[in-house]
Amino acid sequence: MDERVREHAAVLVGWSARVEAGDNVVLSVGPDAHELAVAVAEELGSRGANLLATYSSGEITRAYLRAHDGDFDMNPAHELALLESADVYLSLGGGRNTSATADVPGEQRQAYNSTRREIREARLDTRWVSTVHPTRSLAQQANMAYEEYQDFAYDAILRDWESLAEEMAQLKTLLDDGNEVRLVSEGTDLTMRIDDRTAVNSAASVAYDSHNLPSGEVFTAPAGTEGTVTFDVPMTLRGESVRNVRLEFDAGEVVDYDADQGADVIGDILETDEGARRLGELGIGMNRGIDRYTDNILFDEKMGDTVHLALGRAYDACLPNGESGNDSAVHVDLITDVSEASRLEIDGTVVQRNGTFRFESGFDG
Amino acid sequence: MDERVREHAAVLVGWSARVEAGDNVVLSVGPDAHELAVAVAEELGSRGANLLATYSSGEITRAYLRAHDGDFDMNPAHELALLESADVYLSLGGGRNTSATADVPGEQRQAYNSTRREIREARLDTRWVSTVHPTRSLAQQANMAYEEYQDFAYDAILRDWESLAEEMAQLKTLLDDGNEVRLVSEGTDLTMRIDDRTAVNSAASVAYDSHNLPSGEVFTAPAGTEGTVTFDVPMTLRGESVRNVRLEFDAGEVVDYDADQGADVIGDILETDEGARRLGELGIGMNRGIDRYTDNILFDEKMGDTVHLALGRAYDACLPNGESGNDSAVHVDLITDVSEASRLEIDGTVVQRNGTFRFESGFDG
Repeated sequence: MDERVREHAAVLVGWSARVEAGDNVVLSVGPDAHELAVAVAEELGSRGANLLATYSSGEITRAYLRAHDGDFDMNPAHELALLESADVYLSLGGGRNTSATADVPGEQRQAYNSTRREIREARLDTRWVSTVHPTRSLAQQANMAYEEYQDFAYDAILRDWESLAEEMAQLKTLLDDGNEVRLVSEGTDLTMRIDDRTAVNSAASVAYDSHNLPSGEVFTAPAGTEGTVTFDVPMTLRGESVRNVRLEFDAGEVVDYDADQGADVIGDILETDEGARRLGELGIGMNRGIDRYTDNILFDEKMGDTVHLALGRAYDACLPNGESGNDSAVHVDLITDVSEASRLEIDGTVVQRNGTFRFESGFDG
Repeated sequence: MDERVREHAAVLVGWSARVEAGDNVVLSVGPDAHELAVAVAEELGSRGANLLATYSSGEITRAYLRAHDGDFDMNPAHELALLESADVYLSLGGGRNTSATADVPGEQRQAYNSTRREIREARLDTRWVSTVHPTRSLAQQANMAYEEYQDFAYDAILRDWESLAEEMAQLKTLLDDGNEVRLVSEGTDLTMRIDDRTAVNSAASVAYDSHNLPSGEVFTAPAGTEGTVTFDVPMTLRGESVRNVRLEFDAGEVVDYDADQGADVIGDILETDEGARRLGELGIGMNRGIDRYTDNILFDEKMGDTVHLALGRAYDACLPNGESGNDSAVHVDLITDVSEASRLEIDGTVVQRNGTFRFESGFDG
């Protein structure tokens, strides 16, 4: 076994999920994530946690959903009971075909998901962490050779998280103390209110309210967005290529949009519900182990020198106690490159210019 | 997909487990049983059952058990809750190496199993069925080419179960009405009491108290065994080859034993506990789709023209109401060929001679 698989497992179980003896752990295993699952099982055994492995396969989901006719039962009791009794939920993504569910009708998928709210909430109530095992299928999605992709993925995952958390804490402080953020770049001049909002130092650990491995971003929930933004990082949304999306905001809401490619997808997303036309997240990527786009949001949005904004649902962790943020059935991240001709201001002070933060060497205020 | 995979799934879900709309189904998937799992998911979807897939990997179990130090928690709550809320448990065996757990110390395995009694009982309280997907690893174990093994396995699995159940019912009646069974063959002259015992018509369906697919045997719980028996079907027990085991019984208990090969394994088994020296099962194979030994007890013991006896635990279904049968931590099946120079008598009447039953054509009483 590649030693990095063991290191990945150790980071996931130790740093990310903080697993302790006696924890009841659900380990969700993708069809090609077997090797990582074996390494995680070893970690869980050595910590005296209790392991139950589930199998998460797009092909099984596809077969089930396409064959299912009529209403779905609400929150099936066996799955709900499993998650309600779980302390930790570790998802090891990694299949053989990222398009395995491509021919499942969207309505069928939505009907299924809408009957599983309690199951989802029970899962989110655990110390949950999502990661991926670098598979050939993910390499293909990233247009990379398999071994090249492994190097890429482990560079992103095997960071010194403790030290990155300290670095990110500086940006979190700036955001927590600020009231207005302004992002200026080519095709972008956008202001967002962040009064009373709390930024999340997303350091790939439940101890930081962070549930992705890799992570490496600081994010908050913006409001009252005004101006224009251009997302120049290419991505695939709902199976379609999307290029250079431009959104125009007035009083927090999208009032106009276009794109060089995929404008129809953006239009569909904006029409989901009222919350889909407002921002739920402003995220600032700080993982410099990620050095290129791979059309996988788990990695792309964490990349250093990028900023992402999400249409739709906000995370409660960013809101003042008791307050709920923007609500929507969607949360769609769009990314812009800020490595050149860009600046991020908080209350008029430049905190990042051309990708370099004011607390980093080389910052040119 | 091989059409036989779909047929296998249909038999498993329909005939064997009797799955209905609303059933909460746990589908345990071996690492190489993916294709069968997809076909089963399709069947479950079309019947409106609720599916949760678990992942059953010897390599994961090995890694977990070898790394675990100290006591295991009793019946972890998440796994127990899952099984207590399940209506149906389908186990799809099929890994990549039948020896995947070979280097797990026996004491560690026993320590683990001994903390999982409630979980096991909850599983046995469901409509559970065990089957296997014909994998390359199972073909190897059977000394067969892969496609040859697929033909073999599907011949055993895709029977006309309804008609076989009717045929087996005739033998069940003879056993239910009888008091003493005598088995005579080369190296064998054995009598067993079956007064008041009930035979199970094991027709691969929970509707018949039968939990294996394939099945195809009639079995009961014998007592007061006297005489000698020779098991001439070769098999592997606990990783060791066993050949021509001979057991001598007096007053129901093994008083002497030897074997051409593997006598030490038999000795170990006999010393497990008191019940290990008594018989828990007399089974008569009636699946003529199984035409050779493959060193896999799921198939071998069901083969037509064979009789098997198990040292150890008896099945309660065979005992009069309220009575418990022979108790033991083990249940080890040993098989003898009855195709030649053999007869099975019930109360002095020959019911099977040289493999042919008295209710079959060609029977020579």
